[in-house]
Order: sequence, then structure tokens, then C-alpha cells
Amino acid sequence: MDITEFQKRGKEMVDYIADYFKQLEKRPVYPDVEPGYLRPLIPDSAPQEPENFEDVLKDFERIIMPGVTHWHSPYFFAYFPTVGSFPALLADILSGGIGCLSFSWAASPACTELETVMLDWLGKMLNLPEEFLAGRDGEGGGVIQGSASEATLVTLLAARTKMIRRVQSENPELTEADVMSRLVAYASDQAHSSVEKAGSIGGVKIKTIPSNDKFAVCGSALKKVLHEDRAAGLIPFFFCATLGTTPCCSFDRLLELGPICNKENIWMHVDAAYAGSAFICPEFRYLLNGVEFADSFNFNPHKWLLINAECSALWVKKRSDLTSAFKVDPLYLQHCHQESGLVTDYRHWQIPLTRRFRSLKMWFVFRMYGIKGLQEHIRKASNQLNEALLKSINEARKIHLVPCHLREKFVLRFAICSRTVESVHVQFAWKHISKLATDLLKEC
Amino acid sequence: MDITEFQKRGKEMVDYIADYFKQLEKRPVYPDVEPGYLRPLIPDSAPQEPENFEDVLKDFERIIMPGVTHWHSPYFFAYFPTVGSFPALLADILSGGIGCLSFSWAASPACTELETVMLDWLGKMLNLPEEFLAGRDGEGGGVIQGSASEATLVTLLAARTKMIRRVQSENPELTEADVMSRLVAYASDQAHSSVEKAGSIGGVKIKTIPSNDKFAVCGSALKKVLHEDRAAGLIPFFFCATLGTTPCCSFDRLLELGPICNKENIWMHVDAAYAGSAFICPEFRYLLNGVEFADSFNFNPHKWLLINAECSALWVKKRSDLTSAFKVDPLYLQHCHQESGLVTDYRHWQIPLTRRFRSLKMWFVFRMYGIKGLQEHIRKASNQLNEALLKSINEARKIHLVPCHLREKFVLRFAICSRTVESVHVQFAWKHISKLATDLLKEC
Repeated sequence: MDITEFQKRGKEMVDYIADYFKQLEKRPVYPDVEPGYLRPLIPDSAPQEPENFEDVLKDFERIIMPGVTHWHSPYFFAYFPTVGSFPALLADILSGGIGCLSFSWAASPACTELETVMLDWLGKMLNLPEEFLAGRDGEGGGVIQGSASEATLVTLLAARTKMIRRVQSENPELTEADVMSRLVAYASDQAHSSVEKAGSIGGVKIKTIPSNDKFAVCGSALKKVLHEDRAAGLIPFFFCATLGTTPCCSFDRLLELGPICNKENIWMHVDAAYAGSAFICPEFRYLLNGVEFADSFNFNPHKWLLINAECSALWVKKRSDLTSAFKVDPLYLQHCHQESGLVTDYRHWQIPLTRRFRSLKMWFVFRMYGIKGLQEHIRKASNQLNEALLKSINEARKIHLVPCHLREKFVLRFAICSRTVESVHVQFAWKHISKLATDLLKEC
Repeated sequence: MDITEFQKRGKEMVDYIADYFKQLEKRPVYPDVEPGYLRPLIPDSAPQEPENFEDVLKDFERIIMPGVTHWHSPYFFAYFPTVGSFPALLADILSGGIGCLSFSWAASPACTELETVMLDWLGKMLNLPEEFLAGRDGEGGGVIQGSASEATLVTLLAARTKMIRRVQSENPELTEADVMSRLVAYASDQAHSSVEKAGSIGGVKIKTIPSNDKFAVCGSALKKVLHEDRAAGLIPFFFCATLGTTPCCSFDRLLELGPICNKENIWMHVDAAYAGSAFICPEFRYLLNGVEFADSFNFNPHKWLLINAECSALWVKKRSDLTSAFKVDPLYLQHCHQESGLVTDYRHWQIPLTRRFRSLKMWFVFRMYGIKGLQEHIRKASNQLNEALLKSINEARKIHLVPCHLREKFVLRFAICSRTVESVHVQFAWKHISKLATDLLKEC
């Protein structure tokens, strides 16, 4: 395939994708196939001779599409808010086209530098404490991981290294293995399975902290476990707090947990994988309060912030904590600027060495939506639902309300107006509104 | 950006990429920028209001491109053979467009099933032993990791779990930490830095085995270290052999090392990250001999096999070794087929949970090049160089040769023809050919 054919086929592909989105509602969201459906449909081995593009695309529609779960379908409500937007897709096409990789600054300076600045932009949108930003000469900064699982893993490993060094400096007679065997990390019993996986990879104990009746971990629960474990000779070193748990979107109480972790020299990592995007709206930002006590914070713009997979944003207050946990530095990956203190070599921040130019899609999305556009996207669902709810309330004509806007938010105002209102009327109104809301949610 | 605008912009993007490839030779391969060049060129924070696509693309050319190292440039000789091809790029556009993710079978059955079959196709191209293929009911199979670093890490972790269980079953009094502290893994002193990193993540000792004068590890070197370490009470559990080392493309001696590892219950992982693509050519396949002794094998089609990053192929003989090392299984990721034994849930094979539809670009490339086309790509450089060398030999008119084809390969035949030939003439001819070859390589 030469450049001219690529140009032709590339445009056909763009048309195919556009058509896919136009017709998406009509495709069944979940495929009707049984395990093993695909193998009998395609040859046992690769063809010897080249085939043409039309045949491959035809087979894509015939063989692959019937087995695809449509994550962009408006009927897809599984897992988490779905990935992507057109500007992100365009950026990904461009990133694939130029195909540069970014394990070190020198491997492609623009990849690294744009990533650092984009994570600063995003950190500012979230109003993250200054310490998490790279700025011109900060000690912190952000990095794009492939997934929240990797973010949890790299911070757990950084915390592990830090604690081993601390304990050994105070107890030079202890080996690394001695210390490792006593380390213990914590997360809510509601935390994502990736925390348990990170502990298992890192070879350290993971204990779950019981959440309360709101499915949140509070300070007292952590304190109790720490007390027991210290008494048993264990060394607590890492706590992964969750903002927006997978089962029910509960929030651990950072403002109670943070000071405990800081006092006890426990690394606090905050995992807000899917809920984190909401914090760009000032009215949801309070849910992030307490992040100032954290050592690291992560959420996935590839979930709810219109950026295609793979894009998981991780910030740390001290980049040296990460890099000192991972640094291996053979000659073929060294370059003349690396000791200048001016550059970032992201290979020391992550598990893989090589990765694509991932920050480009952040840049495209942030610019082409603007902060306002992104906030509207986060707010969209609730505004639309609220409008529909108001309509159904007023059409039912049992009670009457008028709405208002509080900045960007569509709000149902409930005012106690008449001299004749008693508590029983308010309770009737509440039941009525709840029923209509429940009916409405059933239709979604 | 609505569908219609995406369609327009997507086509402009395709044109931009086509133009990029047309003009690529003219761009300097390595950027002339100093660390920190980018930050002063872009605003301190994301814009409040949306910007338009033209401005973003203009800024890409003005701000990003001057900082890009051009991995596709014909003057790029750093690191390793560069990624990608047009069919792979088209597949990646499609994958981004439909945006489905594939952590479990149910998350998008086609993603998982195509991946399994593509890894079988590729395994067959390499003539991998049957045990590495998934087939219809095999115990082995392949998975696409993001990078060779991850492949090394997951196999080291699987080996670690396997050895801990084995030792504990024979010595129930030992804790996991006791065993961990005695585990030791090995790799050549020429091995890639990712092996050391994997050991450090997994919390186990890594020792380097001295390579010989050909920079290869041979059986006796491994035996010597094993003997010393067993005597010191250590437990050898993992050996990472390299086929095609990063510094000079040397090959560890699998045929000697494999039987030792098998006998000593040491997991042998074979890392052929960049050289591995060559094994699809029968004339290079002998370099893979001994893989039949390995537990796992990995190489990166995103290096030399025309597939865009990220695509690192890993095969294991026993998939249960991987899945039992990683399996954490919360309710929200379970699905009704998972215990049927018929499906693969790739989340148990890897570090991240979520990842893109990566096998699509394999399918496109394998079909649109065909095995023959891929083999030609691998052979291309040497055929072209050989032809040029023959031309310069015959034009210099000091000696005379004729070429031949051995299957697809352009070969310089050196025949001892005349009755008058003595050893001194052959030596003269060899020196002469070597000099011309050296001059030719300088011009590349």
C-alpha cells in the first residue's frame, strides 16, 4: 500500500467510522455470539499472498462486528462511562501516523514535554494542590499511564521502595526481604480489584478496611487496623483511598484518612478512576477535598473526559519517589540532557518502556472542547434528566414547580409558598416526585 | 464536533499524514530543541472556550513538530527497527473509532477471540511448537502485551508464584516471604534493562550471567552460577534468555540453556523483542531453535513486523501459569461464560485491566501483506544491500562474481573457478569485498 492508496483507504475508513456512529443506535449493544464463534469463520493461518483492503473491510463487518460489544452505543450502561470523542480520535490518528515513541526525552522531546504540560493543565482544571504540578521547577508532576491498574501498581512499588529504605536506614541489620515480609498495604473492602492485584505483583500483604454504611472508609476504621497491625509487628506503608468506588460510587473520607496517613508515614494514593473527571466542575470539586494529604492521585480521562483509551492520569508530589523505585539506565537509553535536571524521562515513571504519543489527544480534546465544553459534558446527563423530571412533574399537574439555573446547573426549585401548606403536603410532594423520578430512570 | 465535521476533519488528517510521509526525508530526523522548549510556546492552562480544529493543527506543526524525533524517517537508525505500516494505521483508526475495550471476553468477544487466533497465526508463521498455540483446546496460547517489558514482568511473576507454591508444598513450614527472599532470577549481562526492572518490581534478586566472547550466554556459564547459588541456599526460578541483544544482536544458546532450565525446574523465558520478526523467514528460523524448551516466548511485532505500537506478542505453554499468578475476580468483571473453559479473559494475563482492540492491526497487516510480503520486508534490506554490493564489486573490476537467488534471497556466489587460484587470492578477494561492504554501509 503506497501513500496514494493509503490516502484513498484512510478516507474510506473515516467514512466507515462516521457511518458507524450514524447507525450505532440500530446495532444491538451486546453481541449474540457464543464463546469460540470466531475461529471457524477465519482461516487457520495467515494468507501467503496479500489480500486487498475491500475484502478485509468486508470481513470486518461480517466476522468482527457481530462479536463487538458497542461501548459507544447510547444503550451501553455497563462498566464505566465510555471512552472517546472525535477530537481525541483525530489526535490518535495523527499520533499513529507520525508514530513516534516516548520512553525518554530524547526519543521524542515533544511527546515528553507536551505530556508534562498537559498533566499540569489537567491538574489545574481539577484545582490540584500546586505540589502535584511540574511547573517550571516543581518536585511533582504528572504522567499518563495506560490504566488505573498501572497507576496503583507504580505508586505501591514506589511506596514499597521508600519504606524499605527508611526502615533499613533505621535498622541496618534488616535485609530487604525481612522488611518486605512485614510490609502491609490497605484499601477499602469496596476498592477496585486492581489494588489486590498490585499487592500480589509487588509481593506485599494487602488488607481490606471495612467500609461504613455509606460504603466509605472513615478514619476510625483505618486507625483500628493500624493499631492491631503495628502491635503484630507489621509495617503499614501504603493506603489506597477510593473516590467513586466501582460498585456504588462511594467516597472514602480523605479529610479523616489523610492526616492519619501523613502522621504514620503511610503513602496515601487516591484512586478516582472513573469519578475523577467530575472534579473539573467546581460544584463537585469538594469531593476531592483532602487530596492535599495524598502522595499521589490518579483518574482516567479515558473514562468520562472524552479522551480515547489508553489514558490514565497520575500525579505525584515527589517525582523522585517514582524514579528512584524504577531507575535502570543502560547506555543505549541514556542521552546528554538526562542529568541536567531539566528533562523528564518517563520510562522511569512506568512499567513499560515504549509507548505511543498519548498526550496529543489530551491537547486536542482540551482545546477543542475548552474547559467549559468539558464541564458541560460532565453536567449534561443530570441537566437533561432534571429537565425531563420537571416536565413530567408539571404535566402530571398534582404539584407545581419552576426551575432555575445555578450557574450551569438546571435546578428544580421547591419553595414552600402557600399559607395552607402543612408537613403532610410536603411529604406527599416528595413521594410524588420520587415516583416520577423512578419512572423516568426506568425509561433511560 | 458532529459526525459531519469529523468526516471532513478526518479526511484532512489523512491528507496531512500522507503529506507527512511524502515530505519526511526533508525533515531533520532529530529535533534541534533544548529541554523545556515547549512550555513557553503554549498557554499555562487549558482554554475556557472551545478552539477550532485549524488552529490546533496549525499549532501542531508550529509547536509539536519541531520537537519530534522522526521514527519513520529513512535516516532514523537509533534504538530499533521502526514501527508501523499503512494497513496497521488503518486498523488502528478503526479500532479507535469503534473504541471497544477488551479486558474480558464479555467486554467485547471479537477483541478477545481475534487476539487468540492472530497469536496462533503468528505462532505458526514462526513455526513455534504446537504447545504455544491455543488451537481449539490447547493449554497454551498468546496474548498481546503493550511492551516487551511487560511480557518479561508477567512471566517473571508467573514463575515466582509457581516456584513459591512448589517450595511451600514441599516445605509447609516456610512462609511466602521466606521463599521470596531466597528466589533468584537470571539473565545475560547483555540482556535488556527491562529484566532488571522486572526483578526489582517483583521483589526478587536478579543476577547477570557473563556472556562469552560472542556476547552469548552458553550452558556452562549458567551451570556454574546455578551451582554456586544452590550451594549458597538460593532458589533459582527464572532465566530470561535473549535472542538478539540490544547492543549487538547476539543470541543466547537456547539449545544448551533449555535442557538445563527444564531439568532444574527453572522457567525459561525467551526475549526476542526486536530480532523475533526475522524468524518468520525459514532461513532465519534456526536462530529460534531451542524455543521448544522455553516456558514462554516474546517478541515485538511493533518493531520489525510493520505493526504500529503498542503490540508485543507473548506466548506461554501453560496459560494457567499466567492466570493463576494474577487472578482477582470481582463480581463486576465476571460473566456467565468465564468458567466454561471455552473463553479467555485477557485481564488475567497482563498488568493493566483495560486495553484497546490491538489484534485488529495484526489482522489487517497479516492479510494485506500476506506471509510473503512480510518475509520480503524482513529480507528487503539485505537483498538491496547485497545487490548494491555486487554492483560495486563488479564495477571495481578487481574480482568478478555472479549472484543467485536462494528462494527469496539475493545471494552473492563466490566460486573457486580457475586452476590458478591460491589461498592468497581468496584472502585478497575477501579483504576487497569487506572494504567495499564497509564503504557501502557507511553510505546507508
